[in-house]
Amino acid sequence: MQAYGLTVDRFLDHAARWHGQVPVVTAGQGEDAVIGYAALKDRAERLSGAFLDMGLVPGDRLATLAWNTRHHVEVWYGAMGVGIVCHTLNPRLTVAHLTAMITEAEDRVLIVGQGLGDLGRELMAACPCIEKLILMDGDAAKMETGARPEIEIEALLAQSGRPATWGGFDENAPAGLCFTSGTTGAPKGVLYSHRANYLSTLRCLQADALALTGSDAVLVAVPMFHANAWGLPFAAAAVGATMVLPGRVTDGKSLARLINAHGVTVAMGVPTVWLGLIDYLDASGEETPTLERVVVGGSGIADALLKRIEDRLGATVQTSWGMTELSPMGTISPPARTPGAARASGRAPVGLDMQLFDANGVALPEQRNVVGHLKVRGHSVVERYYGHEETALDAGGWFDTGDLAEIDDAGNLTLSGRSKDLIKSGGEWINPAEMESIVGAMPSVGLVAVIGRFDARWGERPVMVIEPRQGHAVNDNEVLAALRGKVADWWLPDRIVSVETMPLAATGKINKTQLRATYGAA
Amino acid sequence: MQAYGLTVDRFLDHAARWHGQVPVVTAGQGEDAVIGYAALKDRAERLSGAFLDMGLVPGDRLATLAWNTRHHVEVWYGAMGVGIVCHTLNPRLTVAHLTAMITEAEDRVLIVGQGLGDLGRELMAACPCIEKLILMDGDAAKMETGARPEIEIEALLAQSGRPATWGGFDENAPAGLCFTSGTTGAPKGVLYSHRANYLSTLRCLQADALALTGSDAVLVAVPMFHANAWGLPFAAAAVGATMVLPGRVTDGKSLARLINAHGVTVAMGVPTVWLGLIDYLDASGEETPTLERVVVGGSGIADALLKRIEDRLGATVQTSWGMTELSPMGTISPPARTPGAARASGRAPVGLDMQLFDANGVALPEQRNVVGHLKVRGHSVVERYYGHEETALDAGGWFDTGDLAEIDDAGNLTLSGRSKDLIKSGGEWINPAEMESIVGAMPSVGLVAVIGRFDARWGERPVMVIEPRQGHAVNDNEVLAALRGKVADWWLPDRIVSVETMPLAATGKINKTQLRATYGAA
Repeated sequence: MQAYGLTVDRFLDHAARWHGQVPVVTAGQGEDAVIGYAALKDRAERLSGAFLDMGLVPGDRLATLAWNTRHHVEVWYGAMGVGIVCHTLNPRLTVAHLTAMITEAEDRVLIVGQGLGDLGRELMAACPCIEKLILMDGDAAKMETGARPEIEIEALLAQSGRPATWGGFDENAPAGLCFTSGTTGAPKGVLYSHRANYLSTLRCLQADALALTGSDAVLVAVPMFHANAWGLPFAAAAVGATMVLPGRVTDGKSLARLINAHGVTVAMGVPTVWLGLIDYLDASGEETPTLERVVVGGSGIADALLKRIEDRLGATVQTSWGMTELSPMGTISPPARTPGAARASGRAPVGLDMQLFDANGVALPEQRNVVGHLKVRGHSVVERYYGHEETALDAGGWFDTGDLAEIDDAGNLTLSGRSKDLIKSGGEWINPAEMESIVGAMPSVGLVAVIGRFDARWGERPVMVIEPRQGHAVNDNEVLAALRGKVADWWLPDRIVSVETMPLAATGKINKTQLRATYGAA
Repeated sequence: MQAYGLTVDRFLDHAARWHGQVPVVTAGQGEDAVIGYAALKDRAERLSGAFLDMGLVPGDRLATLAWNTRHHVEVWYGAMGVGIVCHTLNPRLTVAHLTAMITEAEDRVLIVGQGLGDLGRELMAACPCIEKLILMDGDAAKMETGARPEIEIEALLAQSGRPATWGGFDENAPAGLCFTSGTTGAPKGVLYSHRANYLSTLRCLQADALALTGSDAVLVAVPMFHANAWGLPFAAAAVGATMVLPGRVTDGKSLARLINAHGVTVAMGVPTVWLGLIDYLDASGEETPTLERVVVGGSGIADALLKRIEDRLGATVQTSWGMTELSPMGTISPPARTPGAARASGRAPVGLDMQLFDANGVALPEQRNVVGHLKVRGHSVVERYYGHEETALDAGGWFDTGDLAEIDDAGNLTLSGRSKDLIKSGGEWINPAEMESIVGAMPSVGLVAVIGRFDARWGERPVMVIEPRQGHAVNDNEVLAALRGKVADWWLPDRIVSVETMPLAATGKINKTQLRATYGAA
């Protein structure tokens, strides 16, 4: 059969050829910006030429620090199409974090989105590897010349945008770089290959998974700096779906306007975003009649919350689980819900093998309806972290997700905590997630986390940290009473700490590393 | 990212693990035979062991001459899972044809389905390369020993069925071998790689294409010896859909019973099969309420015929176009029909590039709404035929489909003849397909074909061969009158021949090679 490399430029090429007039929409302050896939590809190809003219060569890293806009999509394809690695950075990280990531990646160019020029300049000053700063989304450059110049993207295109030929390199060449959130350790880079992204896209497009079609309009409310925006800039182009990009603003009012202005049928993002949308709709009395499906990610979303989203939006919620290391989709529940069927985090479409292990790395004899350490294998799973010498896999070729999980008879995955969060007390395991779930449901509790504290006698003992809900106070005895009878008595925390503000990582997850530093010592 | 070979054994592995109890049904004379994917995989793994014990090694060819049954599916996976090439043969071919194919492929084992034991013995006598004959689907072996023994599949499993480990070989290793129908020349073998089949399966599973889900039950009415049964034994397993296999019998009554007994939602096969089903339903007054979609292949299906199928079956018809050389799907119309949208043969999902060329191999400047020679490129397209030294591609890497086609603004493909059928008269081209379409619509005409006859002055001149409909006669003047004004006068056939029986190839297509031999001389 033919040699035909699985490279992601083929997705935009396909969209440009067969869905050339289908719009890619970017939310604007006044009018929304609309461009067809054919015109977008033309611009992306000219950006490729400009990147090559700058002296970037295949394999070089180019960083983006930007929101979901069509310029950002153009930069992705412009870089990846000629084998340049697109390193997506989260604008909500600290300068120190960003500097560490840029330095480790040796990014040669930094491209920043709306309102991020000053942060870009600060990073350029801190990172000698950055040779050039490019501004986009309408922000103007401050200076046009200098040893390390900055330039605006339209000026760059006008100056040196010659169309470059895409593809033709090995499908195992790197396409993107994304650092994990690092809530339980130092951030680690995942270097996505073209092949892994291509296969991940096809895997997602199955009818029991994302099931996008050329008739869909997709609201990409998950950031492009977060695990490839769940692969949407690839998947939407691959089928010619309308892409609706919210830019910087994802409040309920803005999203409601976008959904109704562009007939959005499928929306993807974390539950918080949809709760904001519902609050706005409740207040304004508006509806979102075109919306058919909402795909949410992340673990531990209560069924009541899902039902609230479904009822208010008149849309089916599809739950999913993924990780940066999986490119990123692991499991997803199907678009058509069987009434009464377990939702959990859905099932794994073909291409990802899942297996449960015990704490010693031995595969559990029973793989169903028991909690185990979840390990995976697949065509889009990391083999080693960026710059690491050692493999991230065990001797059997499995990647340890760090999640504790259970799989039911129908293959639905339910996450039940992080294995790194487990507390070993007197040789036995305590699962913080179970206690967090019980206490988190108390009306007075906003956020709750359980961590292990060093203990000379038991090894570790649990400490519970609580951020009470606005206007509430938490009573320790009520907390202990809520737990008693539901967990073993020896699981009960030795100490309960009330804090005003829970430390959060940039992704919004509770930063347990910081909690351990503060409360984990003897 | 991880090295994870795209090998087809992963599909059945996935089905066995996550859809283990989902049935694979084979039509029986009394009761239908039902086996779950888990049990089927167990048997296929033990068949692998038996094949290896016979001395077959990866890369060896094993031939099947069989209907659509679960034994046939077991043999496919049993062979492919350990890298043995499964060569599918059409039982309706002549012994001479089959002997030529077996000899060219050097098949070491021949496995035959129900009622094909004697044909198998005849072929074994004619083909010294065949070392062993295996009977399945319930047929008993005649002798158990001898220089070239025959054995029944259950006896084989009992004797040497040890489970073998699947996969682990290169994804570019061959999985299957299928010869083209050879209506316009000698049959040529297409050697499918595991990678091509894997990618073709994922490509088909998109929501705008086959869109199979774990809730579907699929009637596989396209034979497994015909271009991988359009990939269904892979696609159904990949999503855990119920597979319903009709065995040898595909008359309307048998199919209606199967559809209703097993809640078939999607049915795939050529239009003739569905017309037979409709005739039966009309006669019996039965319905097929579970059927949602019918996928048909082949070119030139009249819209009226599609509408008749849709109306009577209460199902959406999806049209498609494919070739053995494309693994096999090229284009398909989506499951959800936009009213009024062109159906034609549908659009090409990502992974197949299409381009139209002129007769000299130059790409047409306008790719839309003009007829051209269709060439393709893709991850599941043939590079060279089996045993051929030379590539099947042009200098630009394109495979010439031999089809004349037009593509509309929305990307829908319409086939308009075979380029090899074109007749060159006085330096200009005549397209037989246009005249065949006009004359084929006449009430008195059953089958019609136009071929070129050598002509000293013009090079070639058209001859029309007609098989009148039962009880009708064809009047030459009426035929010419039907054509006049619709095609150029110089296209009109010089001669019209009425035949009692049109020569057909084994696939049911009109055998133009034979017509040319009979009527093509000066």
